[in-house]
Amino acid sequence: MIETRHIRLAIAEGVATITLDRPERKNPLTFDSYAELAAVFRAAVTDDSFRCVVITGAGGNFCSGGDVHDIISPLLERDTKGLMAFTALTGELVKSMRACPQPIIAAIDGVCAGAGAIIAMASDLRIATPAARTSFLFNRVGLAGCDMGACAILPRIIGQGRASELLYLGRAMTADEGLAWGFFNALHPAGDLATAAAAMAARIAAGPGFANGMTKRMLGLEWAMGVEQAIEAEAVAQALCMTTADFRRARDAFVAKRAPIFEHN
Amino acid sequence: MIETRHIRLAIAEGVATITLDRPERKNPLTFDSYAELAAVFRAAVTDDSFRCVVITGAGGNFCSGGDVHDIISPLLERDTKGLMAFTALTGELVKSMRACPQPIIAAIDGVCAGAGAIIAMASDLRIATPAARTSFLFNRVGLAGCDMGACAILPRIIGQGRASELLYLGRAMTADEGLAWGFFNALHPAGDLATAAAAMAARIAAGPGFANGMTKRMLGLEWAMGVEQAIEAEAVAQALCMTTADFRRARDAFVAKRAPIFEHN
Amino acid sequence: MIETRHIRLAIAEGVATITLDRPERKNPLTFDSYAELAAVFRAAVTDDSFRCVVITGAGGNFCSGGDVHDIISPLLERDTKGLMAFTALTGELVKSMRACPQPIIAAIDGVCAGAGAIIAMASDLRIATPAARTSFLFNRVGLAGCDMGACAILPRIIGQGRASELLYLGRAMTADEGLAWGFFNALHPAGDLATAAAAMAARIAAGPGFANGMTKRMLGLEWAMGVEQAIEAEAVAQALCMTTADFRRARDAFVAKRAPIFEHN
Repeated sequence: MIETRHIRLAIAEGVATITLDRPERKNPLTFDSYAELAAVFRAAVTDDSFRCVVITGAGGNFCSGGDVHDIISPLLERDTKGLMAFTALTGELVKSMRACPQPIIAAIDGVCAGAGAIIAMASDLRIATPAARTSFLFNRVGLAGCDMGACAILPRIIGQGRASELLYLGRAMTADEGLAWGFFNALHPAGDLATAAAAMAARIAAGPGFANGMTKRMLGLEWAMGVEQAIEAEAVAQALCMTTADFRRARDAFVAKRAPIFEHN
Repeated sequence: MIETRHIRLAIAEGVATITLDRPERKNPLTFDSYAELAAVFRAAVTDDSFRCVVITGAGGNFCSGGDVHDIISPLLERDTKGLMAFTALTGELVKSMRACPQPIIAAIDGVCAGAGAIIAMASDLRIATPAARTSFLFNRVGLAGCDMGACAILPRIIGQGRASELLYLGRAMTADEGLAWGFFNALHPAGDLATAAAAMAARIAAGPGFANGMTKRMLGLEWAMGVEQAIEAEAVAQALCMTTADFRRARDAFVAKRAPIFEHN
Repeated sequence: MIETRHIRLAIAEGVATITLDRPERKNPLTFDSYAELAAVFRAAVTDDSFRCVVITGAGGNFCSGGDVHDIISPLLERDTKGLMAFTALTGELVKSMRACPQPIIAAIDGVCAGAGAIIAMASDLRIATPAARTSFLFNRVGLAGCDMGACAILPRIIGQGRASELLYLGRAMTADEGLAWGFFNALHPAGDLATAAAAMAARIAAGPGFANGMTKRMLGLEWAMGVEQAIEAEAVAQALCMTTADFRRARDAFVAKRAPIFEHN
């Protein structure tokens, strides 16, 4: 795996854990950390050493997004081409998160704002503490809610009406709202968050890696496909998965009345 | 703004308030009011005098839809071309609501039925009283649930299963169901409904108008787009928003530790 | 209607009731029952004798899916072409369920797993008992969650985040979760399930059959259509429904202050 300078990355027992780690500033993003995060997720496509990713923040907050000094003020000096380069960079982060075959779990405490809320949204699963406050606050800085895929992805998670409210008002979604609306898969006390994320990741990492990657691929590909086409696409994808050794391993384990041990191929 | 004869229209402090105002009949729609509503929303595209719309009903009900005497019986006298002219007219209302850049808040009390339920659905945000009863009752008058976009839009707000139930049974959705399912953004006592709608509208009207209009545009454009395409589309849209003066105004306000005053350009 | 050997089929008062009936094995699917179910739904397209379908399981369980002995072990002996034939067969079941004009109600108690969960998902409406346990457990047998359309359909019912959790973890969704998430339309005690399904089916069967079939058709067709296109498509579909005698029957009944009796044409 690539060396990282702007984020912390640790890989152990099939799980890559990414920590946004500038806790004194609530883990803002910078031009550098955007690029590095995207590079990590792009490298993950061909990295067999892990089968699940956890992304979290240090010091009781997830991520405060792109801050005024590091991001917004420099953008105000850019020309058109430079602005487009920035939105291409941020969009590349979400694309890379959707393109890597490993499911991504966002583990969220405290502030989860702007691009931080986008990273949570672009993950596959989200767990949080009761103190998590998730803000798609783009219009509070004069920008549109259509940032990094939010107008496409957020409505599919929480519904068009609730997504519209968050994007037009820029208000924070509480942890309880996030749970009730399907943004969060579960809430845990702050002291248990890392353990809960690790347990969920371990469970996914123990699953059939090739097949789980295919699930993620098809969740993306079928986003805007008709139902008939989606069924056809899945027939091909699942037939492919039936040729993996993991499928046979599962059958053999069932017959032997033991849990399967998958090798992800 | 255009003069209206079949609906009430008032514009003040950046908010246009439309009132369906035949309370003795629970505010039914007529051929005339359909056309007038659509004309108002089409005119809104180039009207800078307001940045949010509230639509509501007079006298404790939102809208009873197209009634038997005003709409259904005349339709039974029409030929094929005449029927198509009617469904094109009603469809044009929803299209015009989705095409205007101003977010629309539906404020709903009492009866919200048929085309009334569609107007609620086609709005961006919905608040209601506990007495609101929303009925997509088309099949109770012998028609299909696929009216004015309902089979596309309703499932994206409340999910396919719940939308299917409402459309196949024609039953009323209670206010509590609407809140739990994400149809309503909030419930308020009847006496507070107008105030709550006005407060929400004022907050949106104070936001960056150009950027909020872009959010609405992209929520529509990305409806059936793939995730990658949506991210690309948003990169362009957000880069454009970064060239607005409102973006700079927000930064300047932040640095000066005051609230931004947006000018919507 | 066709004769069935692998499933039970009864048609009465406009409702077809399909029972998966191998209760000693929790109603697993076989190659034969897959094909027979699809044949029943395909035949339903031109069968005017019923206007709603109930699908349920015998003996306190809905369906345990494709079991190891009947399905999985034989698949492990198949070549590529043979695997594709199987996934085409299972996909054909979901396609046939979506293609028949009659709304399908799944009535679910106990185990609802694998292909059983898919049949529930592919139905239009779902009711269950508090004991229902719905498991999209494909990755527990080494396969992908993209089975028979699950990656397209499940997220539209319960949202992307919750669907992702079920597909990546393979865990059971409880009945309470299913109700809160919009997978189930209602829960009923086990002793009342069949009666509740029959009552819901009777209500749908009494509705305008042609129009309800059009609703189902458009819910499918508009799956991945833009909003403008969906509105246009509905304008045509609803104009067609306005030419049916059922539309006139509803008006006449309203004027005569009696309930309409639809004849589905």
